[in-house]
This record gives sequence, structure tokens and C-alpha cells, in this order.
Amino acid sequence: MVKPQFAAVDWGTSSFRLWLMGEDDVILGESRSGEGMTTARETGFSEILEKHLANVNAPADIPVMICGMAGAKQGWQEAGYIDVPSRLSAIPDHSIAIEGQSREIRILPGLAQRDPHTADVMRGEETQLLGCAQSMKSSDCLVAMPGTHSKWVRIVRGEVLGFATFMTGELFQAISGHTILSHAIKDSPGFDGADPAFTQAVLSAFREPHSVSNRLFSVRARGLLFSLSNIEAEATLSGTMIGLELAGAMHSAPKDTPVILVVSGKLRGLYEAALHSLGRKFSTIDADDAVRQGLSQSARTIWQFQDPA
Amino acid sequence: MVKPQFAAVDWGTSSFRLWLMGEDDVILGESRSGEGMTTARETGFSEILEKHLANVNAPADIPVMICGMAGAKQGWQEAGYIDVPSRLSAIPDHSIAIEGQSREIRILPGLAQRDPHTADVMRGEETQLLGCAQSMKSSDCLVAMPGTHSKWVRIVRGEVLGFATFMTGELFQAISGHTILSHAIKDSPGFDGADPAFTQAVLSAFREPHSVSNRLFSVRARGLLFSLSNIEAEATLSGTMIGLELAGAMHSAPKDTPVILVVSGKLRGLYEAALHSLGRKFSTIDADDAVRQGLSQSARTIWQFQDPA
Repeated sequence: MVKPQFAAVDWGTSSFRLWLMGEDDVILGESRSGEGMTTARETGFSEILEKHLANVNAPADIPVMICGMAGAKQGWQEAGYIDVPSRLSAIPDHSIAIEGQSREIRILPGLAQRDPHTADVMRGEETQLLGCAQSMKSSDCLVAMPGTHSKWVRIVRGEVLGFATFMTGELFQAISGHTILSHAIKDSPGFDGADPAFTQAVLSAFREPHSVSNRLFSVRARGLLFSLSNIEAEATLSGTMIGLELAGAMHSAPKDTPVILVVSGKLRGLYEAALHSLGRKFSTIDADDAVRQGLSQSARTIWQFQDPA
Repeated sequence: MVKPQFAAVDWGTSSFRLWLMGEDDVILGESRSGEGMTTARETGFSEILEKHLANVNAPADIPVMICGMAGAKQGWQEAGYIDVPSRLSAIPDHSIAIEGQSREIRILPGLAQRDPHTADVMRGEETQLLGCAQSMKSSDCLVAMPGTHSKWVRIVRGEVLGFATFMTGELFQAISGHTILSHAIKDSPGFDGADPAFTQAVLSAFREPHSVSNRLFSVRARGLLFSLSNIEAEATLSGTMIGLELAGAMHSAPKDTPVILVVSGKLRGLYEAALHSLGRKFSTIDADDAVRQGLSQSARTIWQFQDPA
């Protein structure tokens, strides 16, 4: 039987995920909930963590490695930022220890880009980057981490040169929920990356980002003049926001820079379809695997577990 | 004493404005409220109109000319659309009569652009266009009507060639109210067009529209890393959305096409500062004056009032 060595925790704003890890990165247990930083600020970080550790029957003495918003200023304890450019291997070295706990608990830092003109921050995604570093076959690549706040990171020979965040997911939510487009999208049964309305919108926004605000209103106008369906309306809004992200993200890197897509769930199909429609080569890594790998690598760097002889 | 001839009504989604008009376009009375189409659907269009007519002591027999959302499908009675290209002078001819009223009441039609790739509609702004047609000194111009849904219209020799709507105002509201930027902007005492953060954001979005979604997140990042003030955050969001609109609106017309800005209130200062920062020549017409002029011109075309000898 594999012995538990540590727990790996990805603690976001609105989500909590814990894995109990054994030798050779065997997953011995998993516990998830919506108890993100926002909830934990109310009910207590330590209480939530111990509850999930109990869910997976974690031994009382194993250490815990955490990444994400638990290390924000409003989180459990501020874990600071490493300034870029920085090597990925610096991440575990800058983890902070939570004092006064019955077990060893550490939180990994975020990354910051302190140029006033390109100011940017990430917290949690740096651990995904660390986790997929070994999959980077090219010495120069663009890593895309789609989501509420999509991150695009330029990595050259293991060093993060710079990154940019795009508010894609949050803009989609705000526009679909709080503008006139909400009527057009209402009750949409959902779409996927194979929907032509999605890929057409990606291409349109990628090629003509200056027209994005007009393309959004045209969803409304096409509803009035051409009875656009709610599925087409939703697919068009999504494709427009993703196309705008891709236009910005790919603007600065050379056109043949390989893209590594770190993504899970429904977004995977959308971003894969979007990149296909632009004729861009890419490889995909599961985001859950990436963050767990990054936490595991950090835990092994800090605690140097003895593997059984 | 000037005799009342007709009432002019601009009836939007959430606003109602009525002017009692006499000979030579003398304004004899004015009544405004928030009883737009949304309210009128509940409480009755006729009731709201008669209340405001009573407010200005309008005689029982004078006719009423209306423009705006009262003519939408969900309005009082659908006034349809005129398809572009179209001459502005066609607008009064396509007004519809509300039957069964104690006085003559007409609603002006909107404009529609039925190309599926550039589908667009306006309702209310066509009357502003009509009202400022006489101020168009150039035979070829771009008319900008900023607002919740900003309209940009290309007019050549009195003919509307085409137009585009940008969701600028509504995007500003949705993003400032329903994304992470709401924290950065909260309690801002307000900014104006002279704020450098505003004009810098206009220029940035105009020159690099592909980066807009990233520039929005940088407001958040600059808040964390550089203690950006709430005024700067709000000015940056506003400038970014207006710069994106200008990038799209000016993309298709020749660079030296004169711009006529039809605008009232706070937006006037912002759009004037934005156009100045881009080095674009423009003239400004008050939007309230323009819509009243357009209604008046329509009323005089339809009813041919006898001026006193």
C-alpha cells in the first residue's frame, strides 16, 4: 500500500481542491468544494483545510502545499509575488510557512510584472506553469491558461519572460448577464466549439479587434432583423471574446511560437476549436493535472521525502 | 403671444421628454420624466403622454410627433424601419398614425441595415440625424451619437450610406458594476475628459484595440501593484471603451472625413477630449436640440401648419 506523503491544495477565489498524494505522485484521495477564499474569509481557512484533510483520511503529520488566492492579501496569509522575468524553479523557494498550525503548511507565491505599462499579476497559474514545464518541448513557447481571467505566458528556456491577463470569462459573464444581449442569449441550451457561429466570431474578432464592440451589438440587431437563435447569440458572444483574447495574446510573440493550452472542462473544446480555426499549432495539457504536478514538485523540493528503499 | 402648434416627444427605453412647440420653433413648455417604454408598457402609453401634455397645458387638439422606442415592437405601436441606404427626408413620410386617440399622434420609424454581416438598427437617433442635417456643411461626414449604444453614421449628400452601433455605455456599466474592476472603481468621485488617465486609455485602445481585454485587467493589476486611485481606474475604463469605439468607428471612413458629434451632458466633454487627443477635427451639436429639430421638421412636413399672415 502506498503511504501518503503530503496534501496538495489549489485554493481559488471560489473553489477548493485537495489531493492526498503518495510516493511517485500516486493520488490517494481527492476532496473538492466551493469553499474558496471568499467563503474561507468568513468561516476560517484552517477549519476548511482540516475538514477536507479529514475527508481523505490524511494522517495528522503530513504537510500541505497550497497555491492560489489563499496567498492573496485578503487570503490566509500573504505569499507575495516573484517579479518576472523569473525562472519557474524559483517558485517553491519563495513559498511562505503558516505559523501556529499543528502541521507544516506552506503557500506558494504569485508572479508580478511591475512595469507600469504592462502591469500584471497571477496567483495559482504560476503553479500550473511549473507543473507543465517538463512538457515544454520547445525552448520558446506561449502557455495559455484560459478562464475567468485568461493568462498568456511567454516562456523561454524555463524562464518566464512576461505575461498578459485577458478578462475573457468575466467579460462574457458580465455582458451575457447585464447588457441588452441577455435577452438574446436567455435560455440558450448551450453551444460547443463546432458551432459555426462560434468560429466565425473568433475569426472576426481576431482579424478586426477594433470592431468588437460593434460585433456585440450586431448580435442584438441580428436578433431583431434575422431572428438569430439564442444558441447563435451565445456562441457569437463567446467567440468574440475569445477571438479578442487571441488577437491580443498572439500579437507580440512570433507567429510560429508553439502554443501550450493548459485547460480543463468545456473551455478546452472552445479554445481548441478557436486555435484550429486560426490555423495555429498547439498541444493541450489538462489544467488539473498541471496544478497538481506543480504543487507536487514544490512539495518535493521543500520537504525532500524519503522514498522507501 | 405665440400659439402652440404641436408637441414633440422623444420616448426612449427609460426616458420621456416632451416639448410644446409654437410657430418658428419657439419652445413653449417642456416636461421630462423617467417614464420610458419600460414603464409605459406597464402603466399605459396614452396615459403617460396625456399627463405630460397636461403638464405643459397643451391644447386638446394639437398633434403629437414621437420618435424613439415607443415605435419598437414592444412599444406603443410598431413604426417599422426604413432600410439604408436612405435619404433622411424619407423619415417623416414613413411615420405611422396611432388610431383611436382624441388627437393626431404619429411615431417616426427607425433605420435598419439588413446586411447579415453588418446588421444594425437605430430608433430615435434617425430623428437626431434629420435634425442636424442642415448643419452638415460637408457633403460627406461621420455623425457620432454617443451613449449607451453609440451610433456612428456615414452621410453623403443627405443620404445615410450606413451606420454602426457600439455598446460603449452599456459595456462601461456592465464592467464597472459586475466584474473585479468594480472594487477598483468603487466610490470614485468622478473624472472628466481632462484627466490624463482618460486620454491615455483612449489612445491606447485606439492604437491597440487587440489589447483592450488585457488593458482592462491591468486596471486591477495596477491597483494591486501601484495603488491606482479609483478615479484613475474609472477614467481608464471609460477611456478604454471610448477608444475602442473610436477605433472601430473611424476604421472604414477616410481619415479626413469631418466628424459631427451629437451629444449632451457629461459625455460631451469626454468625446470632445477623446477626439482632440486623436487630433481629429469635429463640430458639436447638442443632442437635445437635434432631436427636437428633427421632430419639429417631421411635424411641419406632415401637418403643414399655417403660419399667421
